[in-house]
Amino acid sequence: MVGYASSKDDQLKRLRRIEGQVRGLQRMVEEDTYCIDVLTQVSAATKALQSVALGLLEDHMAHCMVEAARVGGAEQEAKLREAADAIARLVRS
Amino acid sequence: MVGYASSKDDQLKRLRRIEGQVRGLQRMVEEDTYCIDVLTQVSAATKALQSVALGLLEDHMAHCMVEAARVGGAEQEAKLREAADAIARLVRS
Amino acid sequence: MVGYASSKDDQLKRLRRIEGQVRGLQRMVEEDTYCIDVLTQVSAATKALQSVALGLLEDHMAHCMVEAARVGGAEQEAKLREAADAIARLVRS
Amino acid sequence: MVGYASSKDDQLKRLRRIEGQVRGLQRMVEEDTYCIDVLTQVSAATKALQSVALGLLEDHMAHCMVEAARVGGAEQEAKLREAADAIARLVRS
Repeated sequence: MVGYASSKDDQLKRLRRIEGQVRGLQRMVEEDTYCIDVLTQVSAATKALQSVALGLLEDHMAHCMVEAARVGGAEQEAKLREAADAIARLVRS
Repeated sequence: MVGYASSKDDQLKRLRRIEGQVRGLQRMVEEDTYCIDVLTQVSAATKALQSVALGLLEDHMAHCMVEAARVGGAEQEAKLREAADAIARLVRS
Repeated sequence: MVGYASSKDDQLKRLRRIEGQVRGLQRMVEEDTYCIDVLTQVSAATKALQSVALGLLEDHMAHCMVEAARVGGAEQEAKLREAADAIARLVRS
Repeated sequence: MVGYASSKDDQLKRLRRIEGQVRGLQRMVEEDTYCIDVLTQVSAATKALQSVALGLLEDHMAHCMVEAARVGGAEQEAKLREAADAIARLVRS
C-alpha cells in the first residue's frame, strides 16, 4: 500500500483540476490573452501542484517514514535520505 | 498583439507537454506509484510551469513594458505596478 | 544614480533587520532551540530577503529599464536579458 | 538534545557566513552598487538560508521524528503535523 492510499481520491481530483487549469492556459495563449492574466493563472496552477506535493509528502512521512523508523537501520537511513532529497527538490523548484 | 506573439507556438508546445505530465501524474497515482517517484514528477511539472511563466514575463517586459516606457506617465506606472505584482506572485508561489 | 536611490534607506533598514534575524538564528542554534522554532525563523528571514529582492527589482524596472527602453537598441536588449536572468534566479532560489 | 546536535557547528558556521553576506549587502546598497549585482547577492544569501533550513529539517526528521515514530500515538501525530507545516512554510517562502 502506498503512503497516500487514504487521500488518493482527493489527489486525483486535484490533479484533474490542474489538468483543466493547464488546458485553460493553452486556450488563453491561443486566444492571445493579456500576458499578465496568463501569468496569474500559471501562478495558480503552480500553487495547486505544490499543494499536491505537500499532501504527498505529508502522507509519505505519516506512513512510509514512520514504518521505516520502526524498522530502523539501513531501511530508515535510506528513507530519510530519499525524503530529504525530495524536500530539497521541492523547495528549490 | 500580445507580448508573447513571437513565442506563442513554443509556449503552447510547453503547455501541451505539461498537460501530458499532469495526466501522467494521475496515472501514477491511480497505479499506486511510490510517493517519492510521484513527487519527483510533480517537481518536474512545477519547474516546467515556472519556465512558461519566466518566458511570458520576459516577452511581456520586451514588448508591453518597453512600449509603456516610451509612452510614459500613468500608462507606464500601471504597467510597472502590474509587472511587479506578477513577479511577486511568481517568487512567492 | 542607482535604480533604488529613493528607497535606499528603507532597504538598508530592512537589511539591518535581516542581519538581526540571522544573528538571532545563531543564538537560537547556540542555545539548542527546538528545530521547528529555528525553522520558523529561517522562513521569516528568507521571506524578508525576498522582499528586499522584489523591492530592488521594482526600482530597477521603474528606473534602469524604463531608461533603457527609451534609448532602445542594444542597451535595451542587454537590460532586458539581465533583468530576465535576475528574475529567473529569484524564482528558482 | 536537539535534532541538529551533531551538525550544530556546521550550521553556526553557515549562519555566520550568511550574516557576513547580509552585511555585505548593506555595504553594496550604501555604495550604490548596481541593482542587478545586489540582486545576485540577495539570491545567494536566500539559497544559503534555504540550505540551513534543509539541513535542520533533515536532522529533525532523523532524530525527533524517528523518535516520535517509535513512541507512536499523539506524540507521533503532533510531530508529523508540525513537520508538515514547517515544510509547507519553507516551500512557500
